[in-house]
This record gives sequence, structure tokens and C-alpha cells, in this order.
Amino acid sequence: MSRENTGSEHGRAGRRERGARNTGPLTTQLPRLTNRFAPVDILSPEQVERILDAAYALLETDGMKILSPRARQAYAAHGALVDEATQMVRLGRDIVEAMLAKAPGSFVLHARNPERDLHVGGNVVNFGPVNGAPNIRDLDRGRRYGDLEAFRDILKITNGLGLLHWQGGVVVEPVDVAVPVRHLEMYRAHIELSDLVWAARGVGGVQARDALALSAIEHGCSIETLAERPTLMTVTNVNSPRVVDEDILDSIMIMAEHGQCVVITPFTLMGAMAPVTLAGALVQQTAEALSIIALCQMLRPGAPCVMGGFTSNVDMKTGSPAFGTPEYVNAALATAQLGRRLGVPVRTSAVNASPAPDAQATWETSFSLWAAIMSHSHLINHAAGWLEGGLSASLEKIVIDAELLRGWAEILKPVEFGDDEIALDAIRGVAPGGHFFGSPHTLARYENAFYRPVLSDWSNFENWRDAGERTATDRALDVWKKTRNAYVPPPLDPAVREAVDAYIARRKEEIGG
Amino acid sequence: MSRENTGSEHGRAGRRERGARNTGPLTTQLPRLTNRFAPVDILSPEQVERILDAAYALLETDGMKILSPRARQAYAAHGALVDEATQMVRLGRDIVEAMLAKAPGSFVLHARNPERDLHVGGNVVNFGPVNGAPNIRDLDRGRRYGDLEAFRDILKITNGLGLLHWQGGVVVEPVDVAVPVRHLEMYRAHIELSDLVWAARGVGGVQARDALALSAIEHGCSIETLAERPTLMTVTNVNSPRVVDEDILDSIMIMAEHGQCVVITPFTLMGAMAPVTLAGALVQQTAEALSIIALCQMLRPGAPCVMGGFTSNVDMKTGSPAFGTPEYVNAALATAQLGRRLGVPVRTSAVNASPAPDAQATWETSFSLWAAIMSHSHLINHAAGWLEGGLSASLEKIVIDAELLRGWAEILKPVEFGDDEIALDAIRGVAPGGHFFGSPHTLARYENAFYRPVLSDWSNFENWRDAGERTATDRALDVWKKTRNAYVPPPLDPAVREAVDAYIARRKEEIGG
Repeated sequence: MSRENTGSEHGRAGRRERGARNTGPLTTQLPRLTNRFAPVDILSPEQVERILDAAYALLETDGMKILSPRARQAYAAHGALVDEATQMVRLGRDIVEAMLAKAPGSFVLHARNPERDLHVGGNVVNFGPVNGAPNIRDLDRGRRYGDLEAFRDILKITNGLGLLHWQGGVVVEPVDVAVPVRHLEMYRAHIELSDLVWAARGVGGVQARDALALSAIEHGCSIETLAERPTLMTVTNVNSPRVVDEDILDSIMIMAEHGQCVVITPFTLMGAMAPVTLAGALVQQTAEALSIIALCQMLRPGAPCVMGGFTSNVDMKTGSPAFGTPEYVNAALATAQLGRRLGVPVRTSAVNASPAPDAQATWETSFSLWAAIMSHSHLINHAAGWLEGGLSASLEKIVIDAELLRGWAEILKPVEFGDDEIALDAIRGVAPGGHFFGSPHTLARYENAFYRPVLSDWSNFENWRDAGERTATDRALDVWKKTRNAYVPPPLDPAVREAVDAYIARRKEEIGG
Repeated sequence: MSRENTGSEHGRAGRRERGARNTGPLTTQLPRLTNRFAPVDILSPEQVERILDAAYALLETDGMKILSPRARQAYAAHGALVDEATQMVRLGRDIVEAMLAKAPGSFVLHARNPERDLHVGGNVVNFGPVNGAPNIRDLDRGRRYGDLEAFRDILKITNGLGLLHWQGGVVVEPVDVAVPVRHLEMYRAHIELSDLVWAARGVGGVQARDALALSAIEHGCSIETLAERPTLMTVTNVNSPRVVDEDILDSIMIMAEHGQCVVITPFTLMGAMAPVTLAGALVQQTAEALSIIALCQMLRPGAPCVMGGFTSNVDMKTGSPAFGTPEYVNAALATAQLGRRLGVPVRTSAVNASPAPDAQATWETSFSLWAAIMSHSHLINHAAGWLEGGLSASLEKIVIDAELLRGWAEILKPVEFGDDEIALDAIRGVAPGGHFFGSPHTLARYENAFYRPVLSDWSNFENWRDAGERTATDRALDVWKKTRNAYVPPPLDPAVREAVDAYIARRKEEIGG
């Protein structure tokens, strides 16, 4: 018989001895995280070169369809072969490699709170929230279109739980705000509710220019100064296969020209928008991303760029996207490996395709999160609150993800110990068959000895049953409500606040929203 | 705006094009798994040596309380200092190291089906089921004491889902069978329902001897032959801190003397049965495990042994055990690293302390499973169906775990590709902005291109809602029922079956159960 389950008896004895103490969840802001583990490589060096060779060949012989005349001009000016009739741009490997050489391997995006500057590159691990969801879900109000209240709730909850290293952009689509001015309300919420780096909307030149203007106000500087001291990112996609539309290019070009960070992620679902094979999808993903990184460097050498990977499979029964699958894991690990070879930081995601914030959402997110972290990705997007392949943001899922993210943050801490932790004297001080609950070594340390969970319930079955048999998802409802209601935004200079409001009021009048 | 959620539109288009195909879950038996990744090390070489130095010091100056006179004799005969009054056994480092040198670094346990022999050591990853649970749970019948029907159901479901590399021992406690003969019914079920390696009950000499006798019948050989060609393991615990009781020692000694595998796992919950610090718990765990591995080698040089790690923390609010925590992850990674240094295979677990088979059970299991796999543990116990810190076996949890285990098995496959997978021609064959659903490259491959999930539902929200809003846990009920009802046991020679039944009938009469 295994004796392992007898531990709970010891546990109950221990509780009686020690009495109740305040050991609630830790929700202080996660620090900057550094990965102490070696990256998990899945490709051989030869496999990496084969994928790169094919990606370069694709760019050179076939190219990308670039739907912006201004972008095509920039490509042509740097030696690309541009066919204006087809809008196809073909790029030689020599051109792309020369541009890549200008892209920084690491950089810093500045937050209003300097302690929360976003370091991108090296071994730094950064978490960002759900992005781009059209719907909001919670157990109280069900599933509905996103609105500004939900947008602000997500900011309050993710910041209140201390989970993020950057604040995201469109955490949920606030469809109650008219499209032409929607981005302004999102930017106002970012500045008001958080002091982290935030993201411009990834589509549209107007949206990019307003982000620059508001970020300059937030940081008390000019737009020209922002270029030397970047504060913003745009997180956007290629219209895979091999097209980039004009609205996306406008956003990318304006951000790059102003020295802000462009995170470019091809949308390469295997079998749908990319080949059904992993290697083929990686070839296409790499080619598409490199074409945009090259463009950014043409417009402003040294502009900070991040290569995104979103390659996953589709459900072969329904054609729906699948995430957190073995294919996703392999693609994320390979993407970061390609990024290391190319010398550019990498973005992946912690994603799932579950229709509910349940066990499936959790295992799919767990798979994608370990791959994202152990790959040494630098920006891990969608890491809090993403559900249904991105069609919904879920407030309960934010709390579930809090446990995943805070757990990983704890695992990434270095293990350090000395004689006190080796604890030979403490072991000698407990008789064989005794216990350590009352050991002075335990009593001196137990209150802060262990990770304190956000959501885990470790009570025994009887207590759990008598408390209403609430699953982790049920309990998450309580956590987000309490977190949202208790949230206190970080300090914001009233003059800055006033200037932000004035800018937005003026722009709303101009736009006529 | 992120465009990532638009993928489902492509997906729906794809479904219409392709029509319905049979792409149900893959539940064929998992093959032998080899870990293609480097192990994740968390200790520096100096830290490893510090822990070993302290463990050896503990064995030398303080020792273990060994509650079997026969075991103490064996220790004394090999130079240990034995105090019969206190039953304490002190072991010099030289003795332990000399014994360790005799322990095999890898070995094979033979299954009735030679294709399913259990390879222990090197880079091989093996999964075993829940063990030792007193209760059974499922959504239909709720939580209740285990019985023989539940025991047999677990064997049918885990084998039907093809998850395991060894069959476990007491997957759930069949309390409807009288204790003195309970092990006989368990062994009969193992032989009848599976052709994998199974485990003797980890406590009691009678139970070990009956396991040997029945295994010899199953394999058509003598007990003496079994010693040269081991078939069995016993998975048992130290009564931490630093005690091993006589029933456990009887099981260990009989198995070791007959050349069968002893998996010895100290039960070192930090702050309860071990120091509150990771380093201290590892010191104690290592010392306790080494004392038993040394004993096995004294009794039979070369006896196959596995060093187990079960170190985790307790909930500091309640004193209850916690599993799948950052502390558990660190302990599992460190245990396997210590095992590599010592040259013995390692056992860890995929465990959780959740009161329900929900999101919490899933994230805790996901954390412990990645640590177990990436640590290069050789036996991963409790990997299907464990719940509530081991107080219950859950049938729905087996199905959730099936997705985790099969997902990992897929991830561990090597990535191989050639020009066909690089797919340059396929990419060129799809116009920019087109899609790959109809590409000949896709059509030739899509049916077997991707991992086919056991339980994941990737349908859209509306379909999921209209089908009853069933969570993954709800759906797992259907999967285990279908699997159990469809299960066909592997071939068993009728003569063997008859001999097994005759042996058990005779033993029952002798025992008087």
C-alpha cells in the first residue's frame, strides 16, 4: 500500500498546533522575471538552417503582397524587386540579412513607472494579457460583446493580481464605443488604470498617431523624444498567407518610423493559412515576419522589432483553430529557436481553444505556457484571460491564469541555500517518526516558506463539499470581483490626466465620433 | 486590433470544403517514450554535492530507525553500526557508496507482452496510474470507498486509453475484499485485465511472496527464474522522518532478494515530515532513500532499485499536503538531478491536491507532469486518475490525464522533415491571401497530420452551448464509460488463467479469508 495519503493526518495535527495565521494569496506585482533554465531546443542546427534557407528562398523568388504604396516604395528604395501591377515585393536574402543586422537583439520600452520598464531580449520573460477578444465572459453575466466597462475591468483585475509585464492593447473590444474614437477610450483607460507599457491598436495610422501623442503626454515629452526613448508597442498580424494590408502597414510604419516597438506575428494556422506541416508553416511564418522586420529597419535602422509565432494546427474535424496542442508547443519552441539564430526577440502566447474556462482551457494553456517560457520567448501574449481561441476574454480565466503565471514566476526563482536551509540540525532535532511542525526551524520560517496560491483550495473533501462543492472556476468569480472592487490605480499627475482628457476631447471633435 | 481571432472564419470555410471524416481520438497504446530534450537542471554541481554530503553525514552520525531485526542484521553484516536497543542503524558513506556502485543504472522489467517490457533508466519516460487511493469518485456515483469493481474499472479505462507503461499496484483500495486476501484479488485483476508490468503491494511479506508466485505463473517460469529476469516492482514509502517499519521492510527485502525492482520513496512533506526548506527536505529524502537502496544491494548485489522523490510543501493555512506547487516542481527537478549524480533511476509523480477534477486539478497536474518529464524521471507515478492528494481515484481525472499524457507523448516525438514537409511548392501553389484547405499538399496529409485529442472540444461557443454547456470534466464521464464498456483484455493463455485461479483459491483457503 502506498502510505502517501496519510500525510493529511499530519496536516490536521499541524494546524491545531500552529493556529490561524494570515497567509492569504500573494498578489504583489510580479517582478521582472529571468529564466534560469536553458532554452528547450527542438530543431537541430541543420534543421534551423533548412527552414531559414527556404524562408529566404520564398521571399526572393515569390515574395509578399504588400498593399501599401508607401511600403512598396520603401522596399524598392532598398533594392527589393517590386511589381506595382501585382503589388508583389521580392526580397533578396542579402537585403533581409543586412536589415536584420540593424535590428536590436534586446531593448527597453519605458513605462510611466520606471520600475516597470519592459526589458525585451536575453533571458527576460514577460507576460501580457488577452488581446483582441470581441466577447467578454464571466459566470455572473454570461457571454456578451465586449464593452468599455469590461475593458476597464480586465485592466483592474490583471493589475490588481499583479500579473503583467505589459498592459496589452485591445484586451477586449469595447463595442459600445464608436469605432472611429474607440482607440482613444482604450488609451485613456490604459493611462488611467495602469503604469505599465501599453500597446497601440495594431491596425490603422490614425490609431498609431494618437497612441504616440498620448504616450508623449503620459511621459511628459515630445513625440520626437519618444523615438529615442521608446514607450509603445504595436502587436499585429500578417494577413497570412503572404499579404499585409494597408491599415496594418500604416500602423507598423508609423510606429517604426517613430522608433516604437513592432511585434509582427504571421497568422499561420497549419492546414488553413499555412502548409499542414510544421516545417512548412515555420518557413512561411519566418518569411512573413522577416519581410516586416526588414521594412521596419528600412524605415528606421535600429527600430525595436519582435518576431511573433502563432503557428498552430486546426481541428481536422471542424476546421476550427486549436491551441495548446503538441503542434503549438513544437511551433513555439521552434520559433524561439529561430529567433535566437536570427538575433531578434520573440513573441509567443499562452493560448487555448476551449469553449469554457475549465480543465481543457487549463491544460491547453499549461502546455502553451510551458513551451512559451521554456522556449525563451520574450513576450508571452494572451497569458491572462484568453478563451475560445481568442473569441472571448474570460474574467474567471484571468484568475486561473494568475495561478499559472505566479506559479511559473516562483519556479523561475533561483534555488539558493546555505547551512540553515540544509537543516541538518533541524533533522537531528526531530526524533525518527516525529514531525517538524513544532521544530524551531519550521516555526521560524513557515509563514513565508512557500508559494501562497491565488485560487487553489487544499481543504479536504468534506470541507470542500460542505462549502458548496465549488470548482476552481466557481471560486475564481469571487477572486476577480474582490480584486476589481479593491483596485486602486497607480498615481497619475493630475496635469497629465487633464492633458490626456483634453487631447481626447479635441480628437473626438475632430473625428466626429 | 489583433486579427488572430479571425481564424475560426477560415476554419468554418474549411469544414464545408472537406466534409466529415473519421478523425476520432487516438487511443492506441502509447509506445515506449524517449525524452529528446536535455534534462532541466536546477541545482549547481556544488549544490548537488552539498546535499549529498549532508545526506551522507546524516546517515553516518544519526542514521535510520529500522524496525526489522532481519534488516538490521543485514546492515550489521555489511559494516553498519547497529544499536539494537534503539533500533538505529548508522551507515558510513563508504558503505553506502560501495552498495550504490552495485545498483544498476538501468534495467528492464519484463511484461507478459514482450513489446511492453518496462525499460527503466536512460532517457525512457514511463507513466503509471494512481496508486493507494482509499476512495473512488466519478460524476455518476459520487465519492465512496474503493471496491474491486472500481479497481477493475481503473485497469480497464487506463488500458483502454492506452496510457500506461506499467500497471500500478493498488490503483484504488478494494475495501470490499477482506484485508488478508485483498492482494490476491488485485493481482488476479492485473493478470486478467492487462499484459503490462504490475506492482506487488508495497507492504507485507505475504503480499510480496504471493506476487512472486503469481508472476511466475503468469510468465510460465519458476520464482528462481524470475530473479534473473525480473517482472515485478514494489512501490513503497519510508515512514519519514527516518523510520522504516517491519511490514514495508519485509516487502522490500523479499522483492530485493528475488531480484525484483524496489521503488523506495521517502514521504517528505516540507514542514511536516521533513524540514520546511527544500534543501533540508532533499537531504532527508536522499538519506532515507539511500539507506534502503543500500539494503537491497546488501541482500542481492545488482537488485534493480529506483530512488523516489515525493517532496512537496503543505498548505500553511491548514497543514494539508499540497502538490503540483512550485515547491513540488523544484523538488522533482532536484530529485532527478541527484539521481543522475548517484547513477540510479528516479521515480517522481504527476500529482495534485485539488478537491475536484477541475481546473485546479489540471494546473497542479500539469506543473508536476512537466517537472517529472523534463527532470528525466524514469517512473512517473500517479499519472492517471489521482485526486485530492491521493485520497481519491477519479475516473473523470483519468480521461483528463489521458489528454496530458498523450499530448506529452506527442511532444516527445522527434521533429523530422524533408523537402516535402518544407513545402515550398505548396506555399507557392497558394496565392497570397488564399488558403491551404484545398491544397494537394494538405489533402494528402491532413487526416493524420495532427494529434487527435481524447477529450478536447474545439467547437465554437454556440455549438458548445447548444450541446448543453458541458465542461471537459462532464464530457470525461462519457469517455471513460465508453472506454470501460468497450475494453477487451489482452490474450491470456487459459492454462495460465486456470493456474492463477487455482493458486488464489488455495491461498484463500490457507489464509482463511
